Amino acid sequence: MDERGALALLADELEPVGDDAAVVDNLVITTDMLHERTDFPPGTTRYTAGWRAVGASLSDVAAMGADAQAAVAAYAVPEFDREELLAFVRGASDVCEAVGAEYVGGDLDGHEEFTVSTTAIGRTDNPVPRSGASAGEIVCVTGTLGRSAAGLELFERASDEADEQAAARLRERANDLFRFEPRVDAGRTLATEATAMMDSSDGLARSLHQLSEASNCGFEIDSATVPVDDALVELAADDADALERATTFGEDFELVATLPEDALEEVQAAVDVPVTPLGSVTAAESGVKMDGNALEDRGFTH
Amino acid sequence: MDERGALALLADELEPVGDDAAVVDNLVITTDMLHERTDFPPGTTRYTAGWRAVGASLSDVAAMGADAQAAVAAYAVPEFDREELLAFVRGASDVCEAVGAEYVGGDLDGHEEFTVSTTAIGRTDNPVPRSGASAGEIVCVTGTLGRSAAGLELFERASDEADEQAAARLRERANDLFRFEPRVDAGRTLATEATAMMDSSDGLARSLHQLSEASNCGFEIDSATVPVDDALVELAADDADALERATTFGEDFELVATLPEDALEEVQAAVDVPVTPLGSVTAAESGVKMDGNALEDRGFTH
Repeated sequence: MDERGALALLADELEPVGDDAAVVDNLVITTDMLHERTDFPPGTTRYTAGWRAVGASLSDVAAMGADAQAAVAAYAVPEFDREELLAFVRGASDVCEAVGAEYVGGDLDGHEEFTVSTTAIGRTDNPVPRSGASAGEIVCVTGTLGRSAAGLELFERASDEADEQAAARLRERANDLFRFEPRVDAGRTLATEATAMMDSSDGLARSLHQLSEASNCGFEIDSATVPVDDALVELAADDADALERATTFGEDFELVATLPEDALEEVQAAVDVPVTPLGSVTAAESGVKMDGNALEDRGFTH
Repeated sequence: MDERGALALLADELEPVGDDAAVVDNLVITTDMLHERTDFPPGTTRYTAGWRAVGASLSDVAAMGADAQAAVAAYAVPEFDREELLAFVRGASDVCEAVGAEYVGGDLDGHEEFTVSTTAIGRTDNPVPRSGASAGEIVCVTGTLGRSAAGLELFERASDEADEQAAARLRERANDLFRFEPRVDAGRTLATEATAMMDSSDGLARSLHQLSEASNCGFEIDSATVPVDDALVELAADDADALERATTFGEDFELVATLPEDALEEVQAAVDVPVTPLGSVTAAESGVKMDGNALEDRGFTH
């Protein structure tokens, strides 16, 4: 590859307008690196870490509308603990099993900070890019938003909790919330109709901005339709706080997709999780709006 | 996967008796994590780091006898420098191009220590395991051994060199030695005859021990046949020192393969690099020997 190719590739990597995974023939491949300080709050079990790290890569496969095939992980820690490593491998294997993929091992390494790098591969003959949305279509999201925000809140409350039993209960629930199911089945079904798709790992607001940039379109969504997760509703100060976190926190790994309005019912019937219409795709000049106001490009930057 | 499955998988990961890459249908996939402190001596350019990190994964694909298809990398640094990142991507792309694979990008992350995780995928209908060697066959190696040992020596001499121009020349040569060509073509050709194969990334001695464990066989090699790289011969204290480093230092990413003796000539004619017979495969009871003496299981542990 020449300098121009490297620059273009780099632009793709630096600017979040590339797709969720690279496509090579009918394969999709995606890699992510996560580490303790920024990605695993204190109280995250190694089982959850394995699930979540591998799940993040499987979610990128799902966002291409591909069938997830296999995942590997490189696991690096200052000192190996057999139980921790076992738990990590179990979490990684279980999330693969949940989406019909195979966890096929990886690499072990010593590192000052707990660091995990995961790669997933999948297959599809029709990858869904981020760039195909057109004005007049609708935009929808799978599942609910805010589970990870709620999980983080519970991890933080656990850290402040003096009663160890109460803290353990908070951490257990936080770990449950942190183990999302990658939307591989939903992605494959959505792919039959979706014109653009990506996952919500950087938050709904940022996903809409990224789709808008890649597709050269705008969005107009209605805040009342945003499917805020019950756990976040319960933990947030009020509805506005819950909505704010559900739209900007990210890390929920739901799918955000655009499709023709008349395809919605059929997709909803065929997908195993709720698919909620949030609003419509508009012209690029209109920008990204919620309830008629500009929705800022804020979110979790990985 | 149940606990037993996890334990078996873990055993494969902890004990270096698994194959160089995992096999899923006709795909092979392999991942590696490298970081500054242990894998990139001071003076290693980012171009070399990109080449070497991605090359290490491509070498694992080669060791399965597979056709290398694509690679990705997760690149993590404390602070992003555009030129460094560009150089890394160029190195990663160039090593892919050298073996007919595609570098398809990856992930960027902040990390206290420069850390790279790479994954490569390839295709083959007949992966070569480590476990198929039988007594009576011969064992051979591609290319030369000791390039990386020589490179490291030059990086160390550069650090001790007061004259900055002389140091720069040493570092340039060290970087050249560090950029190995993954033996993908050789691996595909060897795969037509090889009964067992792996790469020499942990050193020849350790590779022989790993093949011996996986295949339940012994080896008897002749030290006079070991193809010590000229650069190491020049830098080593004497021939014994050169041989010692060539057999134990590793990181050369050559292929070590066993095959029937009568297949050697044809393979040598078809492979684009030298394929040197080192000796024979013996019964397991004989152990791993060089010149009739036990060859210790020493080497570079990644």
